[in-house]
Amino acid sequence: MEGFKHLVVVKFKENVAVEEIVKGMEKLVSEVDAVKSFEWGQDIEGQEMLRQGFTHAFVMTFDKKEDYTAFVSHPSHVEFSATFSTAIEKIVLLDFPSVLAKAPA
Amino acid sequence: MEGFKHLVVVKFKENVAVEEIVKGMEKLVSEVDAVKSFEWGQDIEGQEMLRQGFTHAFVMTFDKKEDYTAFVSHPSHVEFSATFSTAIEKIVLLDFPSVLAKAPA
Repeated sequence: MEGFKHLVVVKFKENVAVEEIVKGMEKLVSEVDAVKSFEWGQDIEGQEMLRQGFTHAFVMTFDKKEDYTAFVSHPSHVEFSATFSTAIEKIVLLDFPSVLAKAPA
Repeated sequence: MEGFKHLVVVKFKENVAVEEIVKGMEKLVSEVDAVKSFEWGQDIEGQEMLRQGFTHAFVMTFDKKEDYTAFVSHPSHVEFSATFSTAIEKIVLLDFPSVLAKAPA
């Protein structure tokens, strides 16, 4: 799905209840119409040198950048972010218009 | 799109012709049937503290993990990887079964 992507790659702190964090994120995206789709996953290959300690990726898709901007300032996002930021050891965020170079058949 | 995801987040070296690298990657995925879809993007938000120098994200989707494994050892991938690895300053790779928690309408 093309559109504007919000990609979050994280390493959680030890002893964090990751399932609870993910549930919170799923609740968040369900509450905000601007989020058109949401996918996430946990690395299972475990090539430590290549994943650099990061374990989880979260990808939200918006129709356009303005919808992402609105999401960032949405009260539900502001509230969730406060919790999320206490749970992570490190993070990389990338926000970009997605180029669909090969489409699903 | 669910399936097995291969996520690559990179910072390219200075003076690298990124467009040529992207073209090479597009050619690669077009040659390998196992790659069901391919999306990429360049961060335009530029929140340097959050993107940590990373600028580009590439996401390939496979039907299943075995297809990803086959892709990794495909001659076209092996050849491309040799070029790609000389162009990057840093990289994070995550490989994961994707959970589609909110589907596009």
